[in-house]
Amino acid sequence: MISRREFSKLGALGLAAHTFSPLPLVGQTPTKKIGYCVIGLGRIADHHMRGIAQGSTSTVTGLVSGHREKAEKIAAQYGVPKESIYSYEEMDRIRDNKAIDAVIVCLPNSMHAEYTVRSAKAGKHVLCEKPMAISVAECEQMIAACKSANVKLMIAYRMHYEPYTLKTIELIKSGALGKVHAIDSANGFNIAQGEWRTQRSLAGGGPLMDVGIYCLNATRYLTGEEPVAFTAVATSNKEDERFKDIEENLSWTMRFPSGTVASCSTTYGAQMPSYAKVFGANGWLEFDNFNYEGQHITAAYRKDRNSPVTKIDDASTLHDPSQFIDQVNHFTSCILQNQTPGTPGEEGLKDMRSIESIYKAAGLTLG
Amino acid sequence: MISRREFSKLGALGLAAHTFSPLPLVGQTPTKKIGYCVIGLGRIADHHMRGIAQGSTSTVTGLVSGHREKAEKIAAQYGVPKESIYSYEEMDRIRDNKAIDAVIVCLPNSMHAEYTVRSAKAGKHVLCEKPMAISVAECEQMIAACKSANVKLMIAYRMHYEPYTLKTIELIKSGALGKVHAIDSANGFNIAQGEWRTQRSLAGGGPLMDVGIYCLNATRYLTGEEPVAFTAVATSNKEDERFKDIEENLSWTMRFPSGTVASCSTTYGAQMPSYAKVFGANGWLEFDNFNYEGQHITAAYRKDRNSPVTKIDDASTLHDPSQFIDQVNHFTSCILQNQTPGTPGEEGLKDMRSIESIYKAAGLTLG
Repeated sequence: MISRREFSKLGALGLAAHTFSPLPLVGQTPTKKIGYCVIGLGRIADHHMRGIAQGSTSTVTGLVSGHREKAEKIAAQYGVPKESIYSYEEMDRIRDNKAIDAVIVCLPNSMHAEYTVRSAKAGKHVLCEKPMAISVAECEQMIAACKSANVKLMIAYRMHYEPYTLKTIELIKSGALGKVHAIDSANGFNIAQGEWRTQRSLAGGGPLMDVGIYCLNATRYLTGEEPVAFTAVATSNKEDERFKDIEENLSWTMRFPSGTVASCSTTYGAQMPSYAKVFGANGWLEFDNFNYEGQHITAAYRKDRNSPVTKIDDASTLHDPSQFIDQVNHFTSCILQNQTPGTPGEEGLKDMRSIESIYKAAGLTLG
Repeated sequence: MISRREFSKLGALGLAAHTFSPLPLVGQTPTKKIGYCVIGLGRIADHHMRGIAQGSTSTVTGLVSGHREKAEKIAAQYGVPKESIYSYEEMDRIRDNKAIDAVIVCLPNSMHAEYTVRSAKAGKHVLCEKPMAISVAECEQMIAACKSANVKLMIAYRMHYEPYTLKTIELIKSGALGKVHAIDSANGFNIAQGEWRTQRSLAGGGPLMDVGIYCLNATRYLTGEEPVAFTAVATSNKEDERFKDIEENLSWTMRFPSGTVASCSTTYGAQMPSYAKVFGANGWLEFDNFNYEGQHITAAYRKDRNSPVTKIDDASTLHDPSQFIDQVNHFTSCILQNQTPGTPGEEGLKDMRSIESIYKAAGLTLG
């Protein structure tokens, strides 16, 4: 067994391979906190704001909401001045608020493009929730708008900033598992009636947009490759009110240039604990889960047929909301040091291209 | 947590739903042991013979092998008379051996059809290893030959006689997980060079024929349905000697009439611990594994959103070769009581139809 301490060393090595440096940088103290205006005050906004509050690099300096009363309560909690609360209509006025450096777009998927573009035009950097938008064309517009306004765009792919994910990527890159031949991944849940995520006009699609995207993204960061071929099957119980508009169950396969195959599942109809299993010539690794309550890695691998087996069984203690600290720290660092985020708009666009291919293979339409 | 004792009760209830009765039947003592002639003396034959020896309903009474010396050693071990050892050429003479009631076909896949038909013509019942054969046409010939000779035909789908599999089927049938929406399953390993299973002429196909078939069969016994649509992707490293002839990695999806989707993976290139995960509206179940060294079930489910969660974490102590006892007991019981086996030729034929569809979807050919 590898001890937690030894395994952590693997993870530390891993960070070197990434384009960003974790904050705080050795010998540097950030001179300025970055102020974030949170657009949309639903559940995911709550995670972001609590992460910001627990970290030391960023602050909540503005809110955009359609519910003034709710917004005032949250403003009081995070020390946001009342004059920095905006309705959706007056949101463009954030341009004149010097305390707001960046926004976090926490709206339903179909509104991501509009509010990213408006924020960019207001001169603010944009951290946008996943999925980036509801079409490839929207993703391209968002990238162009941020480029043209000279603001940074990052998609909130939380797992890219989660230490156990980084350790997993590094372990695979190190060749410990040998050549990776297959990846299995799933993520889904039994959705409550009336959620906006079941409305196509707001969500753009079904569980693939919301939770299946974690599987898709994982196959890409675990292989370091883009999938080139897709097959898919989708089913929906049309008598269930929740699935009149969107798919209920979706399973798909992908082929990667190196020959790795992936098989993934997502659902809004069943309880489906999330995982990614990686199968290599010399061993396997299972990553549980994509949730907020801590990750768990198990693995077994050996150098060759005659070598002893190395086993890993290691669970993260980084739970919500601490899980959200590294993500916002990273974007703040990118803004302060003028660096490209680890998960820029292009990362969201790549997923959206694959999502389009998966829906096409399943005979469904995106958007 | 459900205790092992309580969970075992669930399993006991489950047996009622099956068409066969486990031996020994209450109040009955079998009057006669059934004598088996084992055809082909490789690894799987060893498992069968040790299972027979550990049970009390059957005996090894004949051997068919191309290696006389090896056969004599095994004959001495199991008390088989020297005159009941046959070469492949003289094997049809088993007809005249009254001590042989049935055969177990343990040969490479492409020889299953020929030796099943010859055994039937010799008037012997046939227990044939999976995959049943290497084409749908062969399966149909085998069924016809056994019917015409009035002998029983059973395919050695070991899991159908494994208590934890039966408990799992029963738990799903009881509705504990709610409607099943998705199943994920995988089974594969990194095959050694030179194995007959990498030769198309002997194996008929790659890992789907040998280990992926467990996933396919599991989706069928877990849903009680036949898949109606298939997608698949296969890759092979053609520079690897092992994969000049057969596929290396294969991932596929299936759709079932009730709307359940399945996604499965198999490989001969990677270490892929086997599992089947079942995702239902009210909970999930994970079945680990299809191996010889004992099964493990974990599950969590609840009646509805407001009910407490029931958790299961239960591991089987039924290891090889004890795992093989129930299977041969079942066939012996069917012979003695003139009943149709739980996994007749038709079960193997159904899998072969799906295998043909999966290979077609992947752009590969079966046989």
